[in-house]
Parts: sequence; structure tokens; C-alpha cells
Amino acid sequence: MAIYDNILIIGGGLIGSSVARAIKAKDATVKLFIVDVSSNACGVLRTLDIADGVSEKYDDFIEAADLVILATPPSVMKHIGEGVVTGMKAGATLTDVASIKLDIVRTFEPYMRDDIHFIPGHPIAGTENSGPAAGFAELFEERWCILTPSENVDEDAVENLKSLWEALGSQVALMDARRHDVVLATTSHVPHLIAYTLVGTAMDMETVTRNDVVKYSAGGFRDFTRIAASDPQMWRDVFLQNKEGVLEVVDRFIEDLSALKRAIRWDDGETLMKHFSKTRDIRRNIVDAGQDTDKPDFGREG
Amino acid sequence: MAIYDNILIIGGGLIGSSVARAIKAKDATVKLFIVDVSSNACGVLRTLDIADGVSEKYDDFIEAADLVILATPPSVMKHIGEGVVTGMKAGATLTDVASIKLDIVRTFEPYMRDDIHFIPGHPIAGTENSGPAAGFAELFEERWCILTPSENVDEDAVENLKSLWEALGSQVALMDARRHDVVLATTSHVPHLIAYTLVGTAMDMETVTRNDVVKYSAGGFRDFTRIAASDPQMWRDVFLQNKEGVLEVVDRFIEDLSALKRAIRWDDGETLMKHFSKTRDIRRNIVDAGQDTDKPDFGREG
Repeated sequence: MAIYDNILIIGGGLIGSSVARAIKAKDATVKLFIVDVSSNACGVLRTLDIADGVSEKYDDFIEAADLVILATPPSVMKHIGEGVVTGMKAGATLTDVASIKLDIVRTFEPYMRDDIHFIPGHPIAGTENSGPAAGFAELFEERWCILTPSENVDEDAVENLKSLWEALGSQVALMDARRHDVVLATTSHVPHLIAYTLVGTAMDMETVTRNDVVKYSAGGFRDFTRIAASDPQMWRDVFLQNKEGVLEVVDRFIEDLSALKRAIRWDDGETLMKHFSKTRDIRRNIVDAGQDTDKPDFGREG
Repeated sequence: MAIYDNILIIGGGLIGSSVARAIKAKDATVKLFIVDVSSNACGVLRTLDIADGVSEKYDDFIEAADLVILATPPSVMKHIGEGVVTGMKAGATLTDVASIKLDIVRTFEPYMRDDIHFIPGHPIAGTENSGPAAGFAELFEERWCILTPSENVDEDAVENLKSLWEALGSQVALMDARRHDVVLATTSHVPHLIAYTLVGTAMDMETVTRNDVVKYSAGGFRDFTRIAASDPQMWRDVFLQNKEGVLEVVDRFIEDLSALKRAIRWDDGETLMKHFSKTRDIRRNIVDAGQDTDKPDFGREG
């Protein structure tokens, strides 16, 4: 690999620690440092032994870094952004892994330096678990990573970051930040919002006990609980920072749900059948594209 | 096992063929027959060699059956119900596997005979695949099966059917049909309706291509496509036949979604955080109850 000699990852949770593991697995000679504001997380990261140094403060490592990867919740990125930019060495690259991009770009714009390559990024990968212990090196294999560099960013710097993600097993797509946010509102943000909502609705039904919900969850509900177990702080930030995209897609979803509700109320089986038949196809496309397993029920056991 | 000497399954799809496989796996001496209206399905069933006889017509087997299991889509049960009841021998048991119960009870009431034990049932198990080839013997292991006998049904007959499901690896719960429909609207029917809706919404977004949806589906969307790949006819029937339960839960869901939408619009991070924190718990309950795998991401591969 050796695209960057010295890498600093700020935020050692599921994504940050997975990036660290994946980089070290590909090239053990890279100097890699992880910073996490939580002393508890730092303790875990030290035990995991996946970095050349772990600290609660980035001051110790930032001047040496060729690449800085922000992997904190988005609200924390806003908080520490200016200090990180100020501390970096000239010619280094700054990227992130946040699930929203336009708000990140706007946040960093006021204090961004001309001598830093700022290339926002988003690996479309994760699990419902969070924290450093939940990470693993293979997380990015066969997944897509989106980079949203502005037009004036150095092409070689983009090419280097692209190569890093490819080395970790990902395919890389370039698009502008606004487009990223609309696409991800559809394929990620609104699905999460809906899962969180449905799980809450089920918990609040007076006529259905929690025990009922747990016992009979294999009817479909349990699928939603996985997503609704995702990191609350991270998702709060995503919804607030991609407000426009999320609200647009949610409104479309509510319109469509209302149309199906109406079809149910009026015994319009034809409309239901037509709708349900067209959605089957896309599952096959996703499996064929290597973006999900072809085993029934996700290949779940027991 | 040998609770029933002679069993007839009407409908040889995912559930019917899985029941057949599971029964034969437990006790090969049971005489087991499968009827399916589709000659194509009958061909597959014969090749699979999981029954002692396969036919397109139930006339050939119904008189001999100690137990008749209806495993067709609910609308087909309505269509053939009277003929099946008329053809059965005295003292035999009639059950079904439909995901709705009150409508089934009401359908059979007018022509139900006193000398037949009618015990509606619903195994909470399945995958997104359909058809005889999709079935497997282990489908019901560790899952719940709900029986909704009316109060005047023979206790021994209920005990026998309970024992059959237990022999197939399930736990059995008894409840009344109305309660079943509300509980399942929450844990199964509305989750399916929402998944079908969201997948449709994503396919219809003008600003997001089908290719985008497929490539970036690992952000959460792909989970919904699994459920939305389920049998369209079966689910059309379920929604229309549990109209009351489904509309009640959908309305609650839309209320809750609107409240979260409002929180997003007004930057109310506290409300979001509170909501997202409480939903994490129930995933743990479901995993602890053996109703889902504890592996991250359902233990998906690749």
C-alpha cells in the first residue's frame, strides 16, 4: 500500500477502528494512530493493539499525519473541525466517513486551508453495533465508498485516497455532496428513521405486550430491530444534518404509504398486487450486484 | 410422533412443503399427501419426493385424512373451504397456516361441521422465497406457532395439534383470533407493508437512479428489500383480510413518524435521542429470547 506513511484516525468506534484494522491488515508498515475522546475507548483500543499509538488528544499526532480521517459522530466533527485543520501539516489530506456530506462541506469551508487536500468521504458499510470492539478489517470489502471532492481539489490527492479505499476492498464512486445526500437519504437515512419509528410504535401499542413483540418478532419485525439498534447519537446527527434530504424522502414515503392504506381500506387488491409485484425485482438486482447475500433470510441461523 | 396416521396438506408452497418435510423428517411412517392446484408445483413436489402422494385435486386424499392443513394463500382458503369441510371424515382435524385468523374463522363458520375439530393455526416462520423448492424441514425450529381454537373445541384435539407443532421444533401459544390479528399486525403485517412501501418509494424517486439504490443499498435499504421480495398474492390477501388491525397500526406508525419528522424539522435533537435510545433494548430481548441471531448484520456474508 504505502500511499500514506502516517495516518491519524480521529474517533475509534465501529468505523474508525475498522479502518485501522483494515489498513494494518494490508500494510503493517504504515504508522497509524487513533484518537478517541473517551478514555474507556482508548483503553479498549490499546488492548486491541491495532494502532501504533492511541491518545485522547489529537495534538500528539496531528502534525506528522499525511492523512487525517475523521470518524467521530458528525456533531463532533463540527466541534473539532477548526482545530484539526489548523493543526495539520501542509500538503496533507483530510477526509471523513460521515453519512452526510453537504453539511460537512459547509462546516469546514470557513476555515479550510488551501494547502490541505479536503476530500469528504463516506464508506457505505457498518453494522448495528458500535464502539472499538465492534470493528473488523473486512467491513469495507465489496462495499462502495463515495468521495465528494470539490472541483478544485488536487487530482492526485483524490487518486491516492481512492487507492486507499480500493486497497481496503471497496469500490469508489465520485459525486457531489448534494447528490450524495439525496441518494443516501433514500438508501440509508430514511430506512433508519422508519425502522426506529416502527420499533417505537410497536413498543407503545397498548394492546400488544413487549413479550408479544419479542416472541412473534420473526414475522418481520425483528429485521427492523437490527437497524433500530444502531448508534443513537450518530443517527440523531445524520437526521439533523441532512434535514432537507430526509424530509423530502419521508414525505414521499408517507404519500406512498397513504396510497396503499387507501387501497387496503377500499379492498383494491389490484393496486396492492401491482405494487407488491414490482418490488421483488430489486432484491434480485441487489443480490446480483454483490450487495447482499443470496441466502434466504440473510442466511440467519437458529 | 404418530399423532396422526394420515395427513393432507393443501398448498405445497414454502410453508406447506416445509411442514411436509418437517413431518417426514420426524416420522417417516406417517402417510402424507400434498395437493397443489398448480401442475408445475406438483411436478416439483414429486421430484422433491417429500410426500406419499401429490395431486392437483384434494378429492383423492381428503376422505382418509386425520388432519388437513390448509397452506394456500388466504383467498384460496375462502374459495375451497366449503368443499374441504364437506369432504372430510368425521373426527378429523382441520387447521391452516394463514397469517390472519379472524377472517378465516368467520369464513369457515357458516359451513363448519360439529364432527370436525377446527383449530386455526399460524406458524410465525418463513423466508422471502416462495414455492415448493424454497421449503426446508428446519423452518419451524425455535419459532412460535399460534393456535386460535374457539372455546367449544375438543381439548384433546387441540393437545394433539399442539404436539405436532412441538414435534416440528416450535413452541405453541393459544390465543383468540382477534388478539392474534392485532399482535401480528404489529409484528408482521405492518412491517411488511412498510417494507413494500419504502422499496416502492425508492424506485420512484426521480433524483435517485435504480443503479444508485442497488449500489448503496448496504446503508440500510437492502434489509427492506428482503421482506419486500415476499409472495405478493399472499400479502395482498393478508392486508385485505386483516384490514382493521393493519389500518390501526399503520395510523399509529404514521403519527409516530410525523412526530419524529417534526423533531427533525425543528432541530429537536433531544426528542430524537430519547426515541433512538429506547429502541436499542428490544433487539437485545429478541436475541436473548432466541428469536434472532446475535451476530452483527444477521451474520451476513460478503
